Amino acid sequence: MLLILDLLGLSVFAVSGALVAVRRRLDVIGVLVLAIVTGLGGGCVRDVLIGATPPAGLADWRYLVTAVIAGLIVFRYHPALGRMDTLINVFDAFGLGLFCVSGALKATEYGLGPMPAALLGVVTGVGGGMMRDVLAGRVPVVISTGELYAIPATLGAALTVVGAQTELPTLMFALPAAFLTIAWRLGAIWRGWTVPLPKLSEDH
Amino acid sequence: MLLILDLLGLSVFAVSGALVAVRRRLDVIGVLVLAIVTGLGGGCVRDVLIGATPPAGLADWRYLVTAVIAGLIVFRYHPALGRMDTLINVFDAFGLGLFCVSGALKATEYGLGPMPAALLGVVTGVGGGMMRDVLAGRVPVVISTGELYAIPATLGAALTVVGAQTELPTLMFALPAAFLTIAWRLGAIWRGWTVPLPKLSEDH
Amino acid sequence: MLLILDLLGLSVFAVSGALVAVRRRLDVIGVLVLAIVTGLGGGCVRDVLIGATPPAGLADWRYLVTAVIAGLIVFRYHPALGRMDTLINVFDAFGLGLFCVSGALKATEYGLGPMPAALLGVVTGVGGGMMRDVLAGRVPVVISTGELYAIPATLGAALTVVGAQTELPTLMFALPAAFLTIAWRLGAIWRGWTVPLPKLSEDH
Repeated sequence: MLLILDLLGLSVFAVSGALVAVRRRLDVIGVLVLAIVTGLGGGCVRDVLIGATPPAGLADWRYLVTAVIAGLIVFRYHPALGRMDTLINVFDAFGLGLFCVSGALKATEYGLGPMPAALLGVVTGVGGGMMRDVLAGRVPVVISTGELYAIPATLGAALTVVGAQTELPTLMFALPAAFLTIAWRLGAIWRGWTVPLPKLSEDH
Repeated sequence: MLLILDLLGLSVFAVSGALVAVRRRLDVIGVLVLAIVTGLGGGCVRDVLIGATPPAGLADWRYLVTAVIAGLIVFRYHPALGRMDTLINVFDAFGLGLFCVSGALKATEYGLGPMPAALLGVVTGVGGGMMRDVLAGRVPVVISTGELYAIPATLGAALTVVGAQTELPTLMFALPAAFLTIAWRLGAIWRGWTVPLPKLSEDH
Repeated sequence: MLLILDLLGLSVFAVSGALVAVRRRLDVIGVLVLAIVTGLGGGCVRDVLIGATPPAGLADWRYLVTAVIAGLIVFRYHPALGRMDTLINVFDAFGLGLFCVSGALKATEYGLGPMPAALLGVVTGVGGGMMRDVLAGRVPVVISTGELYAIPATLGAALTVVGAQTELPTLMFALPAAFLTIAWRLGAIWRGWTVPLPKLSEDH
């Protein structure tokens, strides 16, 4: 069950990576590399930082196969997928909610304190997309466009680490944390909520 | 013998990194950094992902010294080297064949399954060049130009992990795997073979 | 005492990251991400490469909090800070001297040889800034502008690893190494010393 959710989140991320590659006119290798990096990248960075090597995304071959299949489907059928932007954004919100919670949980299990564990939850959720953008030659969307994306992930990861300090069973706090992240992110998509940019200063 | 082959592959990669730095008008530090990153980067990523720390490229000082010397030679003599593009491409094919096979072997030894081990073989072969390009401010050549580069590396790494499942002595499958990678890559250089790009869709 | 010095160096680096984010018109997430990455990035790369996971920057929550606070201050008060460029450069020189020496020491403690340990000292000093620049979409300043920055760090790291081979107490060589790095870097700021660029060759 958790594996299926995980593979679902991963495949949405992989689709978003492959779509970016198509739009930047990368070749088929670029589509596959960006699918793999976007799908597995955040989790790999988390696992390397907490010392859980080899990372889960490499230890279980199904993750890699899922990302590759997602990449090949996009390479072949991208005109149709390109028109499904909203649907992909919605699925992506689910991937984000799932990954930031599962990432924070795993970091906590490996003994990290609440704040670093929450940070690694966020890294699990947004790290793959940041690597995708750097490889595609653009400033990561999540840090530059004012999109409300990392903050819902931070909330979900923070609630998860707070819950993990209590005696509650994991599902009792992990599910609400993921739910709130997803709901807030969906609200941002539908209502156009953004995060603030720095004020323009006079000296530039 | 294996060490000499390894240092040879590394120094060709380091030369290619240093040449990119020269052509992008980086300074002497940029030439050295790109030589080191291109020569050692792929192997370091592989070793970090499989938990083999410190990476081989750092544990043995000869790797680092080789990359630095290659960088200094390019910094001093790059006009001459710039005219040896074809020669460098040929040597680079040997480095690619060697690195994708040795990378896949090492990942297998560390207990990774066939598919992730093959992926890490490819990472060993192409990862340094990708880091070189990101640092130099361009989209990695290997994912954007249609160059037939990662696919021969994938073949070599795949043959290696398949061979490692058998009872055959390592050289019996590693040598043919490296040979096929190199031959295919050389063919791509001489005949201009490329990989497909995504079809243009009407909605952009 | 060492912790305070460490947090001071980290916060200067975090300020420089946040200022780059403001100048590139990233959003508040970008300001925080670049503050964290610039402050903690170099040490995290070093720790991952030597196998010291989780990295010190994550194991102790005070590092992360310091970087976040530095980022928030810059986000709010950047017009004033933007006029303090020289002051920030001076503090940054202290951060550089501190980090390259402490990084080289830690790598040596983890059993790396003198040359790789010196390299990792330099990585600790300049790695965060390189990641900052890549995320902000520009070629890292330290490899492209001829700024005399990595060479003083290399001197400091090299002196540290040489000193670590002797019987001397750590402070006896670490302090002079950090001092020379800082002095050389300050001299470069005030006198405009630079590193050489490659000669232009006729064939471009």
